[in-house]
Amino acid sequence: MRKLKYYVACTIDGFIAHEDHTIDGFPSEGEHITDYLESLKQFDVVLMGRRTYEFGLKLGVTNPYPAMKQYVFSRTMKESPDENVELVSDNIAELVRKLKNETGKDIYLCGGADLATMLLGENLIDEIILKLSPVLFGSGIPLFSGVIKQTALEHTDSKIYASGVLLLHYRVKN
Amino acid sequence: MRKLKYYVACTIDGFIAHEDHTIDGFPSEGEHITDYLESLKQFDVVLMGRRTYEFGLKLGVTNPYPAMKQYVFSRTMKESPDENVELVSDNIAELVRKLKNETGKDIYLCGGADLATMLLGENLIDEIILKLSPVLFGSGIPLFSGVIKQTALEHTDSKIYASGVLLLHYRVKN
Repeated sequence: MRKLKYYVACTIDGFIAHEDHTIDGFPSEGEHITDYLESLKQFDVVLMGRRTYEFGLKLGVTNPYPAMKQYVFSRTMKESPDENVELVSDNIAELVRKLKNETGKDIYLCGGADLATMLLGENLIDEIILKLSPVLFGSGIPLFSGVIKQTALEHTDSKIYASGVLLLHYRVKN
Repeated sequence: MRKLKYYVACTIDGFIAHEDHTIDGFPSEGEHITDYLESLKQFDVVLMGRRTYEFGLKLGVTNPYPAMKQYVFSRTMKESPDENVELVSDNIAELVRKLKNETGKDIYLCGGADLATMLLGENLIDEIILKLSPVLFGSGIPLFSGVIKQTALEHTDSKIYASGVLLLHYRVKN
């Protein structure tokens, strides 16, 4: 079965973005970026929440991951701005279960927190990969929104970059 | 000048304790614990908030760090339960500035979040040392309470334990 990996940059105080969904403060250059871009080759499907997708959209990016099948989850968007992006408005967990049972590469959950919270609650997230960045935001969008249940993780791999970013791999123990 | 180090266990989602100040879920055995106990020798003063102190008090521990000068910050406690523990009710930042200017070993800030938030706001925290533990709490006491300003950190050292705990050292860039 394909794995679903929640793979995000995160501050030391647990935020994946500022309140307005911008990400100033995360180191934007260095080996951790080239490694990240290379690592995307393990995925052929990406899942994202509407606000995560809209962050790119505001910059004019309608097709953020052209090498992957892209799903955006939203109850409010009426139409996909790009033929490569499929809008999904309901039965999200059901779709994700179906995708996980198909053959293919792993599935990339790139954000946001609401979607991650829902999918963790459904025991659908297999791994959490953090690009833990040497910064405190003080406020913003947390790694998970709302209350999730206590969940044990297994630390499986780490890489330390000169930028101070730590790439941390965890398996979710369901 | 002596350094003030905020040195706490923290979950992957940024919590230092559950809402009720208990800490079930942090690995409680292993080399990371013996290293932690050994590392306390770098300190001869410890600062803590009332609720952090009361966590030990409920277990009958009135003198948690007998080898250190202990300060508990509280506006509500009337009397210290132990002659080795000094209660401080106001001018906290002023006291901490004075302590930092005295000669001696470094100063240990063991929690909680309110005290850490206030001291970070006063630019008094020099280092953040996280025992990053492989668990999600989902809710609880965050690393910092309330909104702090965005703060850049420098990653200075790491150690990875078999328990999956990562000991992460950061210098606060003021």
